[in-house]
Amino acid sequence: MTSSFSSTEQQKAVRWHPPSYDIRVETVPIPQILSPDDAIVKVKLAALCGSDLHIYRGVGGIEEKVHTCGHEFIGEVVALGSSYGGNASGRPPLYSSLKIGDKVVSPFTVNCGECHVCRLGYTGRCPEGYLFGSPALDGGQAQYIRVPKAGGTLFNLSDSSTWSSSLPKDVKEKALIGLADSSLLILADILPTGVFAALQALNHPKVAPVITGKPWPLCFDRETNAVSGGNEVSFTAEDRVLNVAIIGLGPVGVCTTVSMLDAVATRNIPFRIIAVDPNESRREKMKAVYAAIDAAGKGTGQFAVCDIAESKEKVKEWTSGVGCTAILEVVGNTSALSLAYELVRAFGAIVSVGVHGAPPLPLTGSQLYNKNVSLDFGRCPARAMFPPAFDLLVKRQDVFGGVGETASLIDKIVSFDEAVESYRAFDKGEVGKVVFDPWK
Amino acid sequence: MTSSFSSTEQQKAVRWHPPSYDIRVETVPIPQILSPDDAIVKVKLAALCGSDLHIYRGVGGIEEKVHTCGHEFIGEVVALGSSYGGNASGRPPLYSSLKIGDKVVSPFTVNCGECHVCRLGYTGRCPEGYLFGSPALDGGQAQYIRVPKAGGTLFNLSDSSTWSSSLPKDVKEKALIGLADSSLLILADILPTGVFAALQALNHPKVAPVITGKPWPLCFDRETNAVSGGNEVSFTAEDRVLNVAIIGLGPVGVCTTVSMLDAVATRNIPFRIIAVDPNESRREKMKAVYAAIDAAGKGTGQFAVCDIAESKEKVKEWTSGVGCTAILEVVGNTSALSLAYELVRAFGAIVSVGVHGAPPLPLTGSQLYNKNVSLDFGRCPARAMFPPAFDLLVKRQDVFGGVGETASLIDKIVSFDEAVESYRAFDKGEVGKVVFDPWK
Repeated sequence: MTSSFSSTEQQKAVRWHPPSYDIRVETVPIPQILSPDDAIVKVKLAALCGSDLHIYRGVGGIEEKVHTCGHEFIGEVVALGSSYGGNASGRPPLYSSLKIGDKVVSPFTVNCGECHVCRLGYTGRCPEGYLFGSPALDGGQAQYIRVPKAGGTLFNLSDSSTWSSSLPKDVKEKALIGLADSSLLILADILPTGVFAALQALNHPKVAPVITGKPWPLCFDRETNAVSGGNEVSFTAEDRVLNVAIIGLGPVGVCTTVSMLDAVATRNIPFRIIAVDPNESRREKMKAVYAAIDAAGKGTGQFAVCDIAESKEKVKEWTSGVGCTAILEVVGNTSALSLAYELVRAFGAIVSVGVHGAPPLPLTGSQLYNKNVSLDFGRCPARAMFPPAFDLLVKRQDVFGGVGETASLIDKIVSFDEAVESYRAFDKGEVGKVVFDPWK
Repeated sequence: MTSSFSSTEQQKAVRWHPPSYDIRVETVPIPQILSPDDAIVKVKLAALCGSDLHIYRGVGGIEEKVHTCGHEFIGEVVALGSSYGGNASGRPPLYSSLKIGDKVVSPFTVNCGECHVCRLGYTGRCPEGYLFGSPALDGGQAQYIRVPKAGGTLFNLSDSSTWSSSLPKDVKEKALIGLADSSLLILADILPTGVFAALQALNHPKVAPVITGKPWPLCFDRETNAVSGGNEVSFTAEDRVLNVAIIGLGPVGVCTTVSMLDAVATRNIPFRIIAVDPNESRREKMKAVYAAIDAAGKGTGQFAVCDIAESKEKVKEWTSGVGCTAILEVVGNTSALSLAYELVRAFGAIVSVGVHGAPPLPLTGSQLYNKNVSLDFGRCPARAMFPPAFDLLVKRQDVFGGVGETASLIDKIVSFDEAVESYRAFDKGEVGKVVFDPWK
């Protein structure tokens, strides 16, 4: 194994202590290679994410164990286990190609890349996967981090040949050189999660008639030949308008909205999109982001940012009381799900990427039956979603390029000295997304 | 308006009385045309359906109003309102073409065929729709029935030009003449509902990697160009096996199983399908039905019929503990949903076509998040599903052709004299599907 550090070398790390609200910046040993598949990454930037707050508040329902926080990080490979290089025949390509010095971004979970679940692209649920910054695995808010199964997990930003893209090769390579680390960092979680939410809605069978212009079940009669025969009807222009509500305008909600706008623009889908949040500063951020998007990224449709009461009125007005085709729930609590149910039309799809907790769903079987509702839950397979998220990142530098501007997703880059206060203020909604520079 | 009956003419009807378990065969007035869009249908056969039992037991949570039972019927048009014939320009084609004497089958709900919801094919949730055999609308277990919005609702079995089909024209026309009414009757509800359940699973985005052989999100890269770029991997043969469990083997469950088998056979999808029911006689019926299906309808895969405990073992064995890609829940209660959750894999789809009641879902947000589960609920849009259901009916006469045989879905055809006893025995699970001949 190759490891640059002796077991006595120390680093700074942001650590969670039980039971709750107890964040400390501590000096701890630099992590070591523990398994042949490990890599050690020197962290350049690590972000604070809304889902870190579940652990911060002690409501994650998890084992109470001191650990290093954070699941969003970008950095440089400084040590590799013995699996890398010449010994990696037949394994995921990164085992052969990853090198010391490579710049990498990591999805927020580990995935082996070699099991059935990973092969299908469901990398967020690899049986060998762990969430960074949890009791099971130390996170990225440190100077160094150990990445298990790194050849399955990491994305190599130093080698553009390791994934395909819709971008021309020169644009892709220029982007890899030109994009700021703070911009690339959102590939760890929030941007792929936004792309995932939008994609689940756009590909949902219940949304298919609006997009294909053919009624259920003829809307599936593509290459699959799933359905033969059907009831031919002519759609009106209004029938083909995609009505979408996005509930929750934290950083992931903003990424979801930008992703949905880009997707409908790219695919020429007429739309009405409503972005909803009870918090005024989040609504203002969403409005500033929308204003920053160029015309090509906005497509042809209507867009509104609303509080909860306004959203109910707006959806009623826009859809003549029918409700939205799809709801993207980016909050993760029962009141957000109840609102989603209220706003969705019969035969609509609710996509939920929020991290939900222990309460039972606020919906009965009869409510779901009576509205023919679909629910798509769960964590983004960030490793699998990286390529389309990267393409969107490059396209939307008007939004994802800055720090601390009105339209920026990232409010500020701070040192670990501000970690405790940053957690407190982020928890209270007083600041937006905060990024730590462990070397500042 | 054209109506063959004076308001004094009487008929026999099976009537529900509050609060529960009180079925009476009564003499009531023959229904009249009440609106220009109405048709009066002389009922040839009417079936008893599992969901009739919700009302029978008084647990439907509905207004307690005496009404005629039944939502599955086939018959002949004997009267039409003034909307039909020459006055129907611009309306659904059936308003112009439907004639007195035409043989029709009706979906179990009314739908106008002219609204946004109907145009999209979501006919089961038309805002002007009602369920036949409910307090809102008298049902088909009578000698005559009034069908509101008949030009949007009915399917005309006397005119094969009114819907498209994958069958050659001569096969389609021969089938319309040759098929028994008891066979065509299952087009009212149970067969389209089975086709709908199978289709929702096969078209679900979370099933797409198995079927397309491309990982998420590349599996969507068809004509939609939804996703560019991606992580290329090679699937194993095992990755492409579709593992499905069908929970509930009443008549709809059997139709669902037959439909799923036909779909995977037609599309050459390798599969393992497990059909689950705690009731032994239902399992025996399922086995007999499977034995009756010819080789072409069975495809290439494994099929097992199990009780609940066996199903858990079998899924574990077949999928190495990963779980099923899709679960079709054809029961409509919380224990069936809990079993569905247990059997589904991470990133799997649960399709529920059972009629669910008031209890909250037996699942927490965190359970759904942790397994990335999708849930598709609700009633079949039977009008929209008619064409593929008809094609399947014609193909699978080995199963759907008989009455009272080991492999038949319909156990017997009886007179109204046996209605009270039939409800009792059906409720107790002592008989399978019973059909009434109102003229016997």
